[in-house]
Amino acid sequence: MSKRIITISRQFGSGGHSIGKMVAGRLGIPCYDNELVTRMAEESGFDASFIRENGEKVSTYTGADLFYGMGISAGPTFSTLSLYDRLYITQHNIIRDIAEKEECVIVGRCSDYILSERDDCVHVFIYADNDYRAERILRLYGDNGVKIEKRMKDKDSQRISYYEHYTNRDWGNPLNYHLCLNSGFIGDELCAEMIIKAAQK
Amino acid sequence: MSKRIITISRQFGSGGHSIGKMVAGRLGIPCYDNELVTRMAEESGFDASFIRENGEKVSTYTGADLFYGMGISAGPTFSTLSLYDRLYITQHNIIRDIAEKEECVIVGRCSDYILSERDDCVHVFIYADNDYRAERILRLYGDNGVKIEKRMKDKDSQRISYYEHYTNRDWGNPLNYHLCLNSGFIGDELCAEMIIKAAQK
Repeated sequence: MSKRIITISRQFGSGGHSIGKMVAGRLGIPCYDNELVTRMAEESGFDASFIRENGEKVSTYTGADLFYGMGISAGPTFSTLSLYDRLYITQHNIIRDIAEKEECVIVGRCSDYILSERDDCVHVFIYADNDYRAERILRLYGDNGVKIEKRMKDKDSQRISYYEHYTNRDWGNPLNYHLCLNSGFIGDELCAEMIIKAAQK
Repeated sequence: MSKRIITISRQFGSGGHSIGKMVAGRLGIPCYDNELVTRMAEESGFDASFIRENGEKVSTYTGADLFYGMGISAGPTFSTLSLYDRLYITQHNIIRDIAEKEECVIVGRCSDYILSERDDCVHVFIYADNDYRAERILRLYGDNGVKIEKRMKDKDSQRISYYEHYTNRDWGNPLNYHLCLNSGFIGDELCAEMIIKAAQK
């Protein structure tokens, strides 16, 4: 294809992961989502379940800045950074490395920003109406006891904070993407078709 | 088609008008853009060139609110409203009337918001990178002596203020649309194809 890499940012429950898998399957290329977690676990030494839980959270630990401000070190080193910052840097490097080596789909984790300087990428944002997402989340992940509206809001807020903290951009601003698709309206199938067309153009 | 009406919101210079015309031409339905101006001129009594110049501007006149606040009338009447508000109400009614009567494409003028309660519409947002828009504006409309960056910023700001004033929504927020397309990246041709597919789904 003319664009080697497809990044997919997504609202919780919008089906971004499934659409990414569908696109990758049809193009015969890997889709990095959980696979990114495995790689991060290998390279960072953190447990995969810890990364899955914390890989898109924001640092509140300021120890590194404190050391830096006190002039104790020449600047924050990897080991003085918070766990969250270390996870971000690890995944940043892995995503750049993957993009350098192979055609692929990458879901989430600021990949649109991390690869924004490359001109061989298509950046996609998948979203949907709340009713569609709520039905999908309950059907696929089950009811965890938390009210569905709160569950969606909390997860979206977490992703927004994470994205805005590390990128200094507005999450979901169309100007950061080439294609923004309402999966609830368009359907997974047509979303995948449109993404492939945009990548092959 | 399964959706009767396509609304297209657009950044200045992104080609939203051309894409709307292309979609309408292929579907054999009318595209309302300048045609909306003609109808507004007929129904409001304003000159078409005045409407073209002022049809997407925001009111700064508060006379109607003042009368209303003083209890002089039971509420603002059409004749006490500012010219801009009267234009907005006229076009609001025309857009609702058109949507009721025929399949069509409508470009700009808060049509996505005005028709947001209908379930037979596809709402599209067209945007592009600044370089693409600048080149397109200069090629199609010529150089008017104003620096191109300022020209784009002024026109976008005007549309944003107009949209946000009358709709109380964020302009360009993907959640208000079914499809947001970067025309500079995707190209007019593929944008039109994607819009038609979404409408016919």
